[in-house]
Amino acid sequence: MNNEERIESIVCRVLADYEDDRAINKTDLINQPDKKAIIDIIGKLFKILYPGYFSDKVYKIYSLRNNMSATIEDIIYHLNKQIMIVMKYCNMYPECCDETLDDKAREITFNFMERIPQIREYLDTDIQATFEGDPAAPSKDEIIISYPGILAISVYRMAHELELLGVPMIPRIMTEYAHSRTGIDIHPGATIGKYFCIDHGTGIVIGETTVIGEHVKIYQGVTLGGLSTKGGQNLRGVKRHPTIGDYVTIYSGASILGGDTVIGDYVVVGGNTFVTQSIGDCSRVTAKEQELQIKNQ
Amino acid sequence: MNNEERIESIVCRVLADYEDDRAINKTDLINQPDKKAIIDIIGKLFKILYPGYFSDKVYKIYSLRNNMSATIEDIIYHLNKQIMIVMKYCNMYPECCDETLDDKAREITFNFMERIPQIREYLDTDIQATFEGDPAAPSKDEIIISYPGILAISVYRMAHELELLGVPMIPRIMTEYAHSRTGIDIHPGATIGKYFCIDHGTGIVIGETTVIGEHVKIYQGVTLGGLSTKGGQNLRGVKRHPTIGDYVTIYSGASILGGDTVIGDYVVVGGNTFVTQSIGDCSRVTAKEQELQIKNQ
Amino acid sequence: MNNEERIESIVCRVLADYEDDRAINKTDLINQPDKKAIIDIIGKLFKILYPGYFSDKVYKIYSLRNNMSATIEDIIYHLNKQIMIVMKYCNMYPECCDETLDDKAREITFNFMERIPQIREYLDTDIQATFEGDPAAPSKDEIIISYPGILAISVYRMAHELELLGVPMIPRIMTEYAHSRTGIDIHPGATIGKYFCIDHGTGIVIGETTVIGEHVKIYQGVTLGGLSTKGGQNLRGVKRHPTIGDYVTIYSGASILGGDTVIGDYVVVGGNTFVTQSIGDCSRVTAKEQELQIKNQ
Repeated sequence: MNNEERIESIVCRVLADYEDDRAINKTDLINQPDKKAIIDIIGKLFKILYPGYFSDKVYKIYSLRNNMSATIEDIIYHLNKQIMIVMKYCNMYPECCDETLDDKAREITFNFMERIPQIREYLDTDIQATFEGDPAAPSKDEIIISYPGILAISVYRMAHELELLGVPMIPRIMTEYAHSRTGIDIHPGATIGKYFCIDHGTGIVIGETTVIGEHVKIYQGVTLGGLSTKGGQNLRGVKRHPTIGDYVTIYSGASILGGDTVIGDYVVVGGNTFVTQSIGDCSRVTAKEQELQIKNQ
Repeated sequence: MNNEERIESIVCRVLADYEDDRAINKTDLINQPDKKAIIDIIGKLFKILYPGYFSDKVYKIYSLRNNMSATIEDIIYHLNKQIMIVMKYCNMYPECCDETLDDKAREITFNFMERIPQIREYLDTDIQATFEGDPAAPSKDEIIISYPGILAISVYRMAHELELLGVPMIPRIMTEYAHSRTGIDIHPGATIGKYFCIDHGTGIVIGETTVIGEHVKIYQGVTLGGLSTKGGQNLRGVKRHPTIGDYVTIYSGASILGGDTVIGDYVVVGGNTFVTQSIGDCSRVTAKEQELQIKNQ
Repeated sequence: MNNEERIESIVCRVLADYEDDRAINKTDLINQPDKKAIIDIIGKLFKILYPGYFSDKVYKIYSLRNNMSATIEDIIYHLNKQIMIVMKYCNMYPECCDETLDDKAREITFNFMERIPQIREYLDTDIQATFEGDPAAPSKDEIIISYPGILAISVYRMAHELELLGVPMIPRIMTEYAHSRTGIDIHPGATIGKYFCIDHGTGIVIGETTVIGEHVKIYQGVTLGGLSTKGGQNLRGVKRHPTIGDYVTIYSGASILGGDTVIGDYVVVGGNTFVTQSIGDCSRVTAKEQELQIKNQ
């Protein structure tokens, strides 16, 4: 075969392979959520959440109102469109016509946008907690601009509101974007109170049904996860991740697992512990001191 | 010195520093692999692997064939070029003229493209396994669009084929791109069977000579690694990473180390275990329960 | 309310929310550091550090000098500008006029650029150590092009010099960029000797007051951290992270914590150890062998 024939043969093989009825072969090309568009929306939402910090460097202060109006309208237009797409894609209201669907999507979009002041109120407490808890933080500005923990929490807090409003797919696409940027994997379904602080965020997993109180601080490598997923899809919706009280600190590498595991208020969980039992208020949990063997070589 | 003189002096110093004969001073500027071009190729390959999911939103369904042909031709052209460059760069066939090299590179490129249906067959099983194993996954669509585990496995499966075809450098550039995006570091030399599932992928390391069977599921923080790299370059090519059987589950934070370590079929390896010995079929390995010390504060 | 009124109402709410005097509401929009500009500077610095590897593919070898001059001038211009901005932003010299500030910023910029040959000297040893220590590395070229460890160390070594020169904010923005790309979090304040090697970098944390000698090798999941940050902002500037001697190897998942913890020369620290005590020269520290429970299922 010459090159042209060989290319032709490859094309034929690939196209033939698409004929199988497999999940990997999605052919509804138009009406699917657009990851890139959703990431663009996140960027614009950051401009609203942190006016000044993430704004374009060109606009003038006297036009703040016009600028914000324009950005908000833009977000509403694009978010509305993506929500409409995922609703159709997931076949949420098979009985509805496009117009009704669009109304539903717009209602959700407006509801979400109206919650922005509340999201900002929470984020302000998260920044406060991060500043107070980290001796290496010289200023809150530096935290907002460069800390991965704040990036992950900001995206989570927005995704969580969309999740509560019943939007499919988009919340997870948002938190996985933050996961990719930070190594911090917070499921949008998790519930997290005010004054949440993640230090050195990397390798953190917070599962879907986790509930976290206020003033909680967690370090790198912490897992708040399930005990086993042997049940697979049968466990959907079941509470399988822990509940964490208020004023709890969880040091690096700790794993707290299981839906019945409740960590009380004012608990300190030591590094590298593996906790599958509930812990009462005001306790300090540590692994029995690891016996180190030190040999001269 | 005035500013101009000072800049001139800095330029002179830097250029003088380039005169040393050090690895850091590569001057063969033209004929080196282009990381950005390779990442572009990965993006285009995703469009072929997942038709629809990663395609441009503009093209129409009736032109699928033309569109695929164009994308495939484009990939072949660019991949061929990059393979040719790395072959020359690594001085693989010093005796060959450019034309012969180009033929060799094209042959490899065609061989790789012909394996795409097989790669897709494997990926379809990986998506299947991920969906069945994760109670938080509402649909296979969401897995394909947003799960980092699937991104890392997809890139690995392509890089692995190029590695088997003897292509230098490019496979590792590909998997390090996925590593950077996901925190999942799979060496392209590893061998991984069908139905592979990575949950909450982050902080995962799978070494070069690892062999993994079918229906294996691993969690965040798992290392399948070597016992020691004291031997350094003397260990090149030696089997120094473990062998994992079929239907094995490895929970978060487990380290399985050593080239002679064989984990049998149907084994469950518990979280945070440190395994350097072989484990027979159908066993459950757990760390002796960690003694927790719980003190009232 | 119709749609226009509802959008108007959302805009009003968000703007009203900006009126509170909170950290999250930064309104000094013009004179703040520009993260994107700083990341661009990092990209250009890589072209100087690794001539050839990260250069544009178009320029010709005979114009190396002109090309370098242009790139260096460009870096100086933009770095100078960003340093000037952060100095004002952090109110470092409230008594100085803009012209004096600009002089100070230019002096720092020049000092930094003059240290590039020294930074390159260090990086050359890091690449050397990485190549010798990693049996999976076929060439130093591949290390420079694709290893995340080298990316993180390169950014750290530049950020560290800016930190030593007293530049606020920019060093941390630089290392957090590398953190985001690699999962390796090296604080710019840490001190790290020559021949530093990070293998499978992911989930690594090296705290602000850590001191590391020469010929040190660390693996994924290693934390060189503080014992507790309960003191919060009161601990600013206090040495709270460990000191590591020369020729030390620290295997994956080890945590070495505390400002008084000194690891001697030629020490090997085993995987998953939790070290909060000093260790004498030439020792091998391992966790007491973990008792595994192996049950037939």
